[in-house]
Amino acid sequence: MNINLLLFPDFESLDVFGPVEVLGHMQDASLHFVSVSGGIVRGRQNGRIVTEPLGEADQTGILLIPGGQGTRSLVKDAAFIKKLASASDTARYVLTVCTGSALLAKTSLLNGRKATSNKKAFTWVQSVNSDVNWIGSARWVQDGKYYTSSGVSAGIDMALGFVADQRGTAAAAEIANNMEYLWNKDKDNDPFSVE
Amino acid sequence: MNINLLLFPDFESLDVFGPVEVLGHMQDASLHFVSVSGGIVRGRQNGRIVTEPLGEADQTGILLIPGGQGTRSLVKDAAFIKKLASASDTARYVLTVCTGSALLAKTSLLNGRKATSNKKAFTWVQSVNSDVNWIGSARWVQDGKYYTSSGVSAGIDMALGFVADQRGTAAAAEIANNMEYLWNKDKDNDPFSVE
Repeated sequence: MNINLLLFPDFESLDVFGPVEVLGHMQDASLHFVSVSGGIVRGRQNGRIVTEPLGEADQTGILLIPGGQGTRSLVKDAAFIKKLASASDTARYVLTVCTGSALLAKTSLLNGRKATSNKKAFTWVQSVNSDVNWIGSARWVQDGKYYTSSGVSAGIDMALGFVADQRGTAAAAEIANNMEYLWNKDKDNDPFSVE
Repeated sequence: MNINLLLFPDFESLDVFGPVEVLGHMQDASLHFVSVSGGIVRGRQNGRIVTEPLGEADQTGILLIPGGQGTRSLVKDAAFIKKLASASDTARYVLTVCTGSALLAKTSLLNGRKATSNKKAFTWVQSVNSDVNWIGSARWVQDGKYYTSSGVSAGIDMALGFVADQRGTAAAAEIANNMEYLWNKDKDNDPFSVE
């Protein structure tokens, strides 16, 4: 199971490395840090990560799209959105964290689907594409092959939910336990709801 | 305020990037990813991070020491432990996550002090240095300039506790809220206690 983590300048660190911690403990998971052009990508918290080009990744793998300040300019970058649309369309599953759902929404692949996002940036995210059924109260949302989570730390809970869907709740609970993490396992219970 | 994040091969991702998310939102904090020799360091979950040499970092800054499988060999690496002892001795504060406290314990700087660690590896950590007052039930422990946390995700709670000590509880709560994170703010409440 190839899991491709799509980085871009000013991505939010925990949006990536929360799910990385969870998904990295799935049996048979292989994590790949990728970006559109490859090379070193600097995140919002100053970490510089080495990436492979997205085009060289398994196009039928699982794609994770983080959020962060970098999304504000990327939603206007037609070339990036076109590549993201192609990669998301062929991916087996697409997982977004925080404002990563704004990027995915811009591809139109979420049109008519339920999705959520960071509650602090919710009005902006809704404005990116009003044809999405945005859910204002959800820790995370699953609709078909698309998983979208609330802000930053919610990505950890969603990743555990994804593991539960794929491998069973016991497998997810074991990973949470090994992380000494109190999993918020009810996707419909949103402490940061905007509804 | 310079914060130096000390990476080594097979560090645990969330041990670093949980606190990075929190500390990166402190006003005036400047994050630096460092390693003993500098260069690219690969973590346990396959992320490759660009680092600066530890020797070029602010020796009076804050030092964060993560845990992970890499600690098992590093406690036996006398040259590494000597450099860690020097950097920890001059640092303004030293924060450890998970089995990072085993590395710090090996320097003897924790002798006679209270400290905690990952509860899944607690017996091993205790065996590294029995002159430390190891606390088997604590989300995190503060003793003088040393902060030590329990396993993996506990580093997020400890980092928020550190922010609270430095800048007040409201500042820490605001960061947690922006991360949409339910902060386990009682350092003495350990859901993964081994006592």
